[in-house]
Amino acid sequence: MDQTAFLIGFSVMAIASLVIYATGGKKFPSRHHTLMHASVPFIAATAYLAMALGVGNLTLDSGTVVYMARYADWSITTPLLLAGLVMLAFHEQGKPGEMGGFLTAIIVLDVMMIVTGLLSALAESAGTKWVWYLWSCAAFLGVVYLLWGPLRVMATERGTALAGAYAKNVTLLTVVWFIYPVVFLAGPEGLKIITDPSSIWAFLVLDIIAKVFYAFYAASNLEKALSQTRHTAGARI
Amino acid sequence: MDQTAFLIGFSVMAIASLVIYATGGKKFPSRHHTLMHASVPFIAATAYLAMALGVGNLTLDSGTVVYMARYADWSITTPLLLAGLVMLAFHEQGKPGEMGGFLTAIIVLDVMMIVTGLLSALAESAGTKWVWYLWSCAAFLGVVYLLWGPLRVMATERGTALAGAYAKNVTLLTVVWFIYPVVFLAGPEGLKIITDPSSIWAFLVLDIIAKVFYAFYAASNLEKALSQTRHTAGARI
Amino acid sequence: MDQTAFLIGFSVMAIASLVIYATGGKKFPSRHHTLMHASVPFIAATAYLAMALGVGNLTLDSGTVVYMARYADWSITTPLLLAGLVMLAFHEQGKPGEMGGFLTAIIVLDVMMIVTGLLSALAESAGTKWVWYLWSCAAFLGVVYLLWGPLRVMATERGTALAGAYAKNVTLLTVVWFIYPVVFLAGPEGLKIITDPSSIWAFLVLDIIAKVFYAFYAASNLEKALSQTRHTAGARI
Repeated sequence: MDQTAFLIGFSVMAIASLVIYATGGKKFPSRHHTLMHASVPFIAATAYLAMALGVGNLTLDSGTVVYMARYADWSITTPLLLAGLVMLAFHEQGKPGEMGGFLTAIIVLDVMMIVTGLLSALAESAGTKWVWYLWSCAAFLGVVYLLWGPLRVMATERGTALAGAYAKNVTLLTVVWFIYPVVFLAGPEGLKIITDPSSIWAFLVLDIIAKVFYAFYAASNLEKALSQTRHTAGARI
Repeated sequence: MDQTAFLIGFSVMAIASLVIYATGGKKFPSRHHTLMHASVPFIAATAYLAMALGVGNLTLDSGTVVYMARYADWSITTPLLLAGLVMLAFHEQGKPGEMGGFLTAIIVLDVMMIVTGLLSALAESAGTKWVWYLWSCAAFLGVVYLLWGPLRVMATERGTALAGAYAKNVTLLTVVWFIYPVVFLAGPEGLKIITDPSSIWAFLVLDIIAKVFYAFYAASNLEKALSQTRHTAGARI
Repeated sequence: MDQTAFLIGFSVMAIASLVIYATGGKKFPSRHHTLMHASVPFIAATAYLAMALGVGNLTLDSGTVVYMARYADWSITTPLLLAGLVMLAFHEQGKPGEMGGFLTAIIVLDVMMIVTGLLSALAESAGTKWVWYLWSCAAFLGVVYLLWGPLRVMATERGTALAGAYAKNVTLLTVVWFIYPVVFLAGPEGLKIITDPSSIWAFLVLDIIAKVFYAFYAASNLEKALSQTRHTAGARI
């Protein structure tokens, strides 16, 4: 049954990667969003393939299975998704150095969140598990602060249409990302309230929403905002 | 005998790194290509040193030795070489975000290609080995598509001279990179048609072509294209 | 006693990350320096937490303890600190590609320095230990060359005030970074002249200078240079 979930994950992600690229905008300023969103499920497909083949599926002394490929996937895909939001907030404005600063800070917090999440999963003692879990949550709060604080202010300066697209994308991403640590905590790596298969299916659904549905949603919000911006610019002339 | 190959690899790469830097252009827009091409063999020198010292040389149950340092090297050097081609295709045109999108997509595909290549090398069962090998090839095809599709179109927009330099560089790189998976497949990590020492020497020759010869070849093509562009610009005035 | 040092390290770094962000400039062109300097101790805090919890504390056959978290920390924080100096040397001038070339070369040298430092720490034989140590020093010399050669020339082109800030920052960073390999060599991972606790406390002091004191010092030098530049620009008008 786990195998089914992994193979569904692999297939959905592999096909999604191609479809996101095929249907996405190929001209500036859509193309780099298309390329970024198509890259994300390609990584996830590789991770699901690894889980299906048993590569990196680590069984702890406690009997809990930790899927290392999941964390490897997240440590690359979540920075890419955040980079997409940072690019949208800047939307080709601002100096490269300035954008580099935000990318650095938000990716550092995000990667620390994933790495300490993995350390929490691997921890054998409850105390250590909780310390890492809370530190991971602290890093997540830092990510949320940057997304909803300074980056939202920056998006607002790009006009109503782009600010609206940013708000929609960041809302969906934040809501979905808040569910991940809840599933983690309830699952075998945390309080063991739900079983290993339940946790696998829950993460599969979350991954499809956060990586595939989000890609189409974000692209559609961007295109709408761009056409509104062009319309307004046209009306002004 | 393996040791000889590793020490030759170390020496050639270490000296090449210095010579590429010393002889390369130090002014804009050559300098960043010089810095990038000098970085690549420095990493390779470190990897050959590791292989010579036995660090990361993993003997599998089947008796096959997997040189982990090779894959660590490739996972950094191949993205750098691709970044050089992306920079050439854009040649200081286009928005930073746009270039970031291409860099993201091509580096994601490339790193997945190397990582799954390593997983194929490490796989004990033939089935798993082939699945990873084919997935690695799929990622490689993605890299080739980006290089010969949208990036070549972009290079064409930079004028005949630069488009010519891009075409020459991408042709050499593609041809050499196509030989790597063939040697891998024939070698001890694949179908075991050639022996471990043969595979080591074959990779040494490929590495010297792909990292050292290519650096001089790419620099020479870039300089020629730049002087032609200046000439044309001069003639136009 | 080691535990005390690790917990002090964690607390100082965690608080410093917040204070550097809270007190740092939030407007262009200070903000990206603020974000970068606040990210560095957040990573260090996570590493000290790992050392306190015993995660990645590897005891070699020789009895030497190698703190893997330290090297993981350094492999991300030292590139960030160097990126800050590269950004200062360019100070929003120069083409993105050009800055990318310097970032690539200096980060490649720096990461090779850290990785081979770790390999030196892990080496059981004295010969291998020295080979890696010397190669790590060679990479460090490459970093120093770029900082004091081409990047200093570039900073000079940004005017007296900014060149002065660059000179002050690069001097402090170079001096402190020169002490690290000395402590390493004297410590349990090297010649075992000083004990494990002494080495831990020495690195703690160095880390606080290099990551926390340096952040405030660099920010203050940048702000002074910016206000001088504005003043001069005002006087000129």
